[in-house]
Amino acid sequence: MIIVVKNNCEKNQFDNLVDWIKEIGLDVHISRGAHSTVLGLVGSTEKVDIDLISSLDIVEQVQRVQEPYKNANRKFHPEDTIVRVGDIEFGGDSFQLIAGPCSVESESQIIEVAKAVKASGAKILRGGAFKPRTSPYAFQGLKGTGIELLLKAKEETGLPVVTELISLSYLDMFDKVDVIQIGARNMQNFELLKEVGKTRKPILLKRGLANTLQELLMSAEYIMSEGNDQVILCERGIRTFETMTRNTLDLSAVPVLREKTHLPIIIDPSHATGVARLVEPMSLAAVGAGADGLIIEVHNDPKHALCDGAQSITPEQFDVLAGKVNRMLPIVGRKQF
Amino acid sequence: MIIVVKNNCEKNQFDNLVDWIKEIGLDVHISRGAHSTVLGLVGSTEKVDIDLISSLDIVEQVQRVQEPYKNANRKFHPEDTIVRVGDIEFGGDSFQLIAGPCSVESESQIIEVAKAVKASGAKILRGGAFKPRTSPYAFQGLKGTGIELLLKAKEETGLPVVTELISLSYLDMFDKVDVIQIGARNMQNFELLKEVGKTRKPILLKRGLANTLQELLMSAEYIMSEGNDQVILCERGIRTFETMTRNTLDLSAVPVLREKTHLPIIIDPSHATGVARLVEPMSLAAVGAGADGLIIEVHNDPKHALCDGAQSITPEQFDVLAGKVNRMLPIVGRKQF
Amino acid sequence: MIIVVKNNCEKNQFDNLVDWIKEIGLDVHISRGAHSTVLGLVGSTEKVDIDLISSLDIVEQVQRVQEPYKNANRKFHPEDTIVRVGDIEFGGDSFQLIAGPCSVESESQIIEVAKAVKASGAKILRGGAFKPRTSPYAFQGLKGTGIELLLKAKEETGLPVVTELISLSYLDMFDKVDVIQIGARNMQNFELLKEVGKTRKPILLKRGLANTLQELLMSAEYIMSEGNDQVILCERGIRTFETMTRNTLDLSAVPVLREKTHLPIIIDPSHATGVARLVEPMSLAAVGAGADGLIIEVHNDPKHALCDGAQSITPEQFDVLAGKVNRMLPIVGRKQF
Amino acid sequence: MIIVVKNNCEKNQFDNLVDWIKEIGLDVHISRGAHSTVLGLVGSTEKVDIDLISSLDIVEQVQRVQEPYKNANRKFHPEDTIVRVGDIEFGGDSFQLIAGPCSVESESQIIEVAKAVKASGAKILRGGAFKPRTSPYAFQGLKGTGIELLLKAKEETGLPVVTELISLSYLDMFDKVDVIQIGARNMQNFELLKEVGKTRKPILLKRGLANTLQELLMSAEYIMSEGNDQVILCERGIRTFETMTRNTLDLSAVPVLREKTHLPIIIDPSHATGVARLVEPMSLAAVGAGADGLIIEVHNDPKHALCDGAQSITPEQFDVLAGKVNRMLPIVGRKQF
Repeated sequence: MIIVVKNNCEKNQFDNLVDWIKEIGLDVHISRGAHSTVLGLVGSTEKVDIDLISSLDIVEQVQRVQEPYKNANRKFHPEDTIVRVGDIEFGGDSFQLIAGPCSVESESQIIEVAKAVKASGAKILRGGAFKPRTSPYAFQGLKGTGIELLLKAKEETGLPVVTELISLSYLDMFDKVDVIQIGARNMQNFELLKEVGKTRKPILLKRGLANTLQELLMSAEYIMSEGNDQVILCERGIRTFETMTRNTLDLSAVPVLREKTHLPIIIDPSHATGVARLVEPMSLAAVGAGADGLIIEVHNDPKHALCDGAQSITPEQFDVLAGKVNRMLPIVGRKQF
Repeated sequence: MIIVVKNNCEKNQFDNLVDWIKEIGLDVHISRGAHSTVLGLVGSTEKVDIDLISSLDIVEQVQRVQEPYKNANRKFHPEDTIVRVGDIEFGGDSFQLIAGPCSVESESQIIEVAKAVKASGAKILRGGAFKPRTSPYAFQGLKGTGIELLLKAKEETGLPVVTELISLSYLDMFDKVDVIQIGARNMQNFELLKEVGKTRKPILLKRGLANTLQELLMSAEYIMSEGNDQVILCERGIRTFETMTRNTLDLSAVPVLREKTHLPIIIDPSHATGVARLVEPMSLAAVGAGADGLIIEVHNDPKHALCDGAQSITPEQFDVLAGKVNRMLPIVGRKQF
Repeated sequence: MIIVVKNNCEKNQFDNLVDWIKEIGLDVHISRGAHSTVLGLVGSTEKVDIDLISSLDIVEQVQRVQEPYKNANRKFHPEDTIVRVGDIEFGGDSFQLIAGPCSVESESQIIEVAKAVKASGAKILRGGAFKPRTSPYAFQGLKGTGIELLLKAKEETGLPVVTELISLSYLDMFDKVDVIQIGARNMQNFELLKEVGKTRKPILLKRGLANTLQELLMSAEYIMSEGNDQVILCERGIRTFETMTRNTLDLSAVPVLREKTHLPIIIDPSHATGVARLVEPMSLAAVGAGADGLIIEVHNDPKHALCDGAQSITPEQFDVLAGKVNRMLPIVGRKQF
Repeated sequence: MIIVVKNNCEKNQFDNLVDWIKEIGLDVHISRGAHSTVLGLVGSTEKVDIDLISSLDIVEQVQRVQEPYKNANRKFHPEDTIVRVGDIEFGGDSFQLIAGPCSVESESQIIEVAKAVKASGAKILRGGAFKPRTSPYAFQGLKGTGIELLLKAKEETGLPVVTELISLSYLDMFDKVDVIQIGARNMQNFELLKEVGKTRKPILLKRGLANTLQELLMSAEYIMSEGNDQVILCERGIRTFETMTRNTLDLSAVPVLREKTHLPIIIDPSHATGVARLVEPMSLAAVGAGADGLIIEVHNDPKHALCDGAQSITPEQFDVLAGKVNRMLPIVGRKQF
């Protein structure tokens, strides 16, 4: 960590800062320049709060040399982590499709969708039971019943299931759920992260709408610091000034995260765009960017889908998409599914 | 609500949409233009999910005419809501200062700060017991002990206290806390919002880093829909491309929210800027913008404050600030404190 | 266009607004609701200034039903526009690579790069002669000499050339340049847009760092309204809160623009990311998203490239990239080059 | 400048970088850590292109210690620059109001407004002659005639005038204009900046919609590096995700710029918000934040103003606003006007 200090600061303020750094167990190298002085901190700086130092009157800027995450850091774990859901692998040269409806609505719906997406190559079934909604007046999901229906579809098709956990109080309903999803709005719900870090289930961690990639890695670090290293990162669109899409899908996140971390990275093209007809192009783009998989909303009821889950594509469209994805995989050095 | 439909859509898709709108109990007025058709929806549209309709292939755009919030809406409650904490009032022509340290650290610290800020005019004591931190390795607050120390300072000084609740599991520790703060990262933790909506305590609701003002009002609506209308809104900086300040304080939020809602609106200048020397100018700016109060970090230990809580100002600086605020209040039509 | 007016406005203000709308030649349909009144404007609304109406005290919101651009609008020109540079086509099922160095530096440099990228499949040579730089102290390009060197490379290799115009005063140096580039910083330099609209050369129009897709289309409209419909749109990254990449490449711009306009759309992956090793994954992503081409920086001098133009890839890396792009094209329904 | 280099880079790449740094005349201090090596560059680093170095494969990050601007930098010019327009001063403990219509429309309009705003305390008259408009179909100003009318109002009232220059080709019309405004969209039109840098008129430089404060200072540096140090900076709102206001007025820019530069800083509350009723609160907020002045749109024709220039306030509202501003000035340590 490097701290740039103004040269016009009072000597005792400067000495206080240096003393404080030594007290927390770090060494300091001091180089004085014409207009400012640079302190180089040597030691385990990941516990140092960069915001606190930045806020000091005498400090011009602070810059980390080492990243503040250790468990998620590729420097300390150069090999890809392979996250395993049964015999399905995320990471390495694998590529996985996760698919299913936005919300679980009925037994027949979820089983039909599960069968359809399995036939097209999906290896994991998704489906929302608890739905975090901006409005208190909107449908909030079938909750416990939704999870039961998902598990019936799992029994019927053999597909493992992933669904979102929105509060600690529902954790015991997730016993038979294969992968726990932490949604974008909960990416910095640190109490929830610590709790799922104590489980030994794979965690699908979605990037928050306005969170940096470093914050995403720090949230993965929360889970991993409790002993669970089975974390799949998921980019699903960030908030920008553009209004023609609901969010802006940040695909450069894939190669950037690939360098910073050993964890697998997947893309959710459905939420980012909010429009079914953008799902296929953005899915192929994600494959080109080097993603380890896709999580896609698929809905089977065209009449109903007209107004509920309409950002979903149909099973027929998903089948076409999956075919194109499969043709692309060898070009980016991955095994076909 | 207005839906613009493409004219080249198939008739049955169009009819399905119209039928579906009628099924959910709304009337539809249809006006056909040369390139598109406009549907005007009449009735209680606040339960209609605008994202779902936007995502339909045949839809060009959707626009609400009525806001999706009712309880928080000034149209339905033209008078200012006065939120009362004992005999302290937020709203109307009052103006309140809330002050105290970032984190509660010790009995002497919190009591000293409490006495100092009270002497300068603060009416409520703030202090963090549970600290949501980006890094799992950073200090996370004194937790239960922190709340006990806050309550001791309340006993000693008579100042009511406000502190942040970060998880439902800690709610029963908040029995004697006067105002429950919901932090920026939890603004869309809907389970938490519903639960504090069931209490009858005033809630200080902070805007999320990347949340729109409409989303802030929808989160207030979550609390109010459970029966608690004692909500104070707080702007504390939003995330933008600018990096010279930690966040960008959005002061136009004050007059905009004033038109949209009857709830009081306060400003937190400490977190937005992250630098102590910006607190005074941004506090005076907030008064100019028409805020109903300020929540400010104040720290009493200069040596320690060097590196912990350094974005805080000292009690002496707070006293100067409070004096200037008080001189400004009559100019903006408010009572001095 | 739809205008939502508050019901509590004074009658004469309302009447003034309606009169004014009629005076500018539009019809008005009025529907009164419980809390607001909706005015539907019928006629040629593209000249109505939406900002001016939004700013009226009595107006709650304004929404366009028709887009404010005509020439660039796919509704009025359903077929793809094919932009032709000699016998090279942009649009339809073609795909084109544009490549070359960031800055033109010397005759040998530009000719070597031109030969190399031509051998790998590039059809147009790019190279900066005038460089807009944030700092007045940075190298600003070889200017007129740079254009002469580009034209030598064109003579040598037969590749048409594209280079950026940064001021009207340099326009007469562009006589033999095949495609005029308008850079991101000049996307709303309306005087420049009008002037290049008077030429009959193809224009490569880059999206501004913080401009919406609608603004990009309005800038194309400026060029087209002067009679030049040979406009190629280019996405090159937008400004967001994320700092791990220089900008955020908005690939969903491709399918969204495809629906809104008939103009070809290409991607510049070099500027968005600022890092050579992200160019290949983002290029393949662009192909997946459905782009009509790529513009890529390629540099031939590894020693020099170490510190000048280092965001460029080498000719060898470009050759690998071009090969992968070519393999992908049939999957997205395009002809190989 | 500090460069952090990866330890796993090849020796010759590292040596090349060090050699290159020395070649451009800088000294290098090298400190090797466990995972990375830090290069400290000593010398005049303002000409080094940080983007180029960041883009090197072997580089993890680059951080400036010295700012890249010299002329605009308070470190090298600790005293406030006073910009003088006749005997009117910007900077120091002065505070100035600039006011006038969005567009100059007629002789009677501009003279009436000029008289009214002068009576309320404005010292400079503003008025748009050349209007940069997003749409080619919108009114683009009276151009040369507009400037003549402005100069008539100057003659009539004695108020100096400020108006926007949008292209070099119009510069000779600005002979008798007192202050040249560079608008937000031209903040990085570097050719224009250099040209106004060659004049000896005060320049009002507006921050671009998506430009950082450092970029604003670099644009001031362009003007100053040509010998003109009479630059007034103006914040007028930045582009964010919030849509309830047209832009987000970034008032913390005022105290932040105050530390970084000696140039005066004013606020334009009219464009940021786009709504007349937000102008007063945001003007008072600007005074609280420490601005050196305000530039405000005022329109005198209520009937016409209904739909043209409606974001303007009336002379009556301006008079009330000016009165409140004047009462606030002593509280923030400034002379009343």
